[in-house]
Amino acid sequence: MTIRVVAKNNVKPEKIQEFIGLCKNLVGESLKEEGCIEYGLYQELENSGILTMLEEWKDESSLDKHLNSNHFREIFPLLSEYLEKKTEINVYKKL
Amino acid sequence: MTIRVVAKNNVKPEKIQEFIGLCKNLVGESLKEEGCIEYGLYQELENSGILTMLEEWKDESSLDKHLNSNHFREIFPLLSEYLEKKTEINVYKKL
Repeated sequence: MTIRVVAKNNVKPEKIQEFIGLCKNLVGESLKEEGCIEYGLYQELENSGILTMLEEWKDESSLDKHLNSNHFREIFPLLSEYLEKKTEINVYKKL
Repeated sequence: MTIRVVAKNNVKPEKIQEFIGLCKNLVGESLKEEGCIEYGLYQELENSGILTMLEEWKDESSLDKHLNSNHFREIFPLLSEYLEKKTEINVYKKL
């Protein structure tokens, strides 16, 4: 069964465009990974500072590899300086 | 462009099974709606009380129709008694 990730970020208003730019690299590299079914950056319709990654992975092992990939380990720590609070990450299985 | 909904529920531990049962009707009816691309109930891997609907709709108009559908208006208010706090709903567009 695939797993789904929702990684929700509250981005500082003045940093939204920079955050989106940095995420583009992360999205592009992640989509090339084996086991990545979906990986996209989404913006809340009513609050442009809520920027969320919606992801789908083949299995937990694929997600673990992603979290240990060079691109994730390089880019994810850089994102934190654009945030008002820590990224809220949930990992789900379908019922 | 399609829109995505993440509706996150924190369910009381003793009410999880009842909540899941009630959601099954909502999922089944919603999937029959025109404009519904995806509608599923997901459970957090590390916290079984976090139960989230992940949805995709053709457009905002389809989502509006869903929110005004009989099945949504009947079932959604019933879910609130199972929750520790109000459902957290975000509606997204892809960047």
